Amino acid sequence: MEEVQVNETKIEGRNAVMEAFRSGKTIDKLFVLDGCQDGPVRSIVREAKKGDTIVNFVSKERLDQLSETGKHQGVIAMAAAYEYSEVSDMLKLAEERGEAPFLVLLDGIEDPHNLGAIIRTANQAGAHGVIITKHRAVGLTAVVARTSAGALNYTPVAKVTNLTQTMKELKEKGLWFVCADMDGTVMYKQNLTGPIGLVIGNEGEGVSRLVKENCDFVASIPMKGQIDSLNASVAAGILCYEIVRQRLN
Amino acid sequence: MEEVQVNETKIEGRNAVMEAFRSGKTIDKLFVLDGCQDGPVRSIVREAKKGDTIVNFVSKERLDQLSETGKHQGVIAMAAAYEYSEVSDMLKLAEERGEAPFLVLLDGIEDPHNLGAIIRTANQAGAHGVIITKHRAVGLTAVVARTSAGALNYTPVAKVTNLTQTMKELKEKGLWFVCADMDGTVMYKQNLTGPIGLVIGNEGEGVSRLVKENCDFVASIPMKGQIDSLNASVAAGILCYEIVRQRLN
Repeated sequence: MEEVQVNETKIEGRNAVMEAFRSGKTIDKLFVLDGCQDGPVRSIVREAKKGDTIVNFVSKERLDQLSETGKHQGVIAMAAAYEYSEVSDMLKLAEERGEAPFLVLLDGIEDPHNLGAIIRTANQAGAHGVIITKHRAVGLTAVVARTSAGALNYTPVAKVTNLTQTMKELKEKGLWFVCADMDGTVMYKQNLTGPIGLVIGNEGEGVSRLVKENCDFVASIPMKGQIDSLNASVAAGILCYEIVRQRLN
Repeated sequence: MEEVQVNETKIEGRNAVMEAFRSGKTIDKLFVLDGCQDGPVRSIVREAKKGDTIVNFVSKERLDQLSETGKHQGVIAMAAAYEYSEVSDMLKLAEERGEAPFLVLLDGIEDPHNLGAIIRTANQAGAHGVIITKHRAVGLTAVVARTSAGALNYTPVAKVTNLTQTMKELKEKGLWFVCADMDGTVMYKQNLTGPIGLVIGNEGEGVSRLVKENCDFVASIPMKGQIDSLNASVAAGILCYEIVRQRLN
């Protein structure tokens, strides 16, 4: 899958646009369906007018033409591109919250819906950031932003060239790494507390050999069915919440 | 979202087609990319030749034209439409396995990717079936089949007119119902063992009032983030696996 490189990012759909405003993100321009008077859209226009956003009322045809996702719901915002964070920002965030670091590392997620859903889950599970790779992986596109349902405004995402190198550096700062794979120990029996990096593999091929070798543990989700695996974002959700559960105890 | 009514179902993509053969499903016709010689496709053709399937080698253009998902990966199979099961089949399945019934009820899931991912998760979590509603919900389309990664061949799916009526009938057979909602008790603190029906709400609106009133418990997933909710299929996965965890103890 090709990565979309954008200098200006389109944020589409009511929830995503509203969250972008709420998070204090700079929105350069807003396109709204002309004549649309319902509540959520009026709230968005009100938010836009508080700041320096230029509001354009346009036809459905114009919105459809601008839309990259096909699901604009009458509103498209143009923001500066999502900026990638640094891994150090995530450790700082954990420190500020007085929590042991909890990072989610993605070893080649290609589907933008999966990436968006994982960022959304990471936000809700209280993770301090998501690390993605430069190669053979999707970046922060408009579909990812929309699917993240606003989480991209709050949860830092860093992009690294060499995931194993990043893991080595993080190990020096005290992090442990666990990756998800079928041949691991059932996750309920593993200690997933403390400073942790959860590694999720590619949709088709799982975690790559080198990355797996650099993990301290391999955890498995019990599979009672007749098929091969779970959807990558569902698997990430189940593992993130096993970490949440153990941290609550 | 409109429900696609099909008498003949297209199964697209290598995993989904292979799983359909493996499960013993009757495939009337198979379309394969002419000249494609790689392993998975050759295995599929071999499977097809064991049975009564008619194999057609066609051009990429023809496959693209036939494809409903846009992701055929060189193979499209035509099967008799996925047949909906009856709720009684699910109870029978639980009995055969000597397990307490575990059903997943969907109160208006509209996105076919979510429905497919939930059926896939239900299969892996060992649920005995998925119940969907006739109205305001997506049915078993080709996208659902593909996203289920073959699970649709193993996990029964029933379609009902009135979800609360079905719940009342199941309560008489000893089932308890838990629905997911923000205002519930944290799922880790609830007893989710025994014969259970897990109710997942619509992507935007959650569980409807009447359905919620008919639930015995309301369970919540801890949300530590700044956004509203989780993706519906991720939330379903987290809850299904909390049930799995509690059943293992």
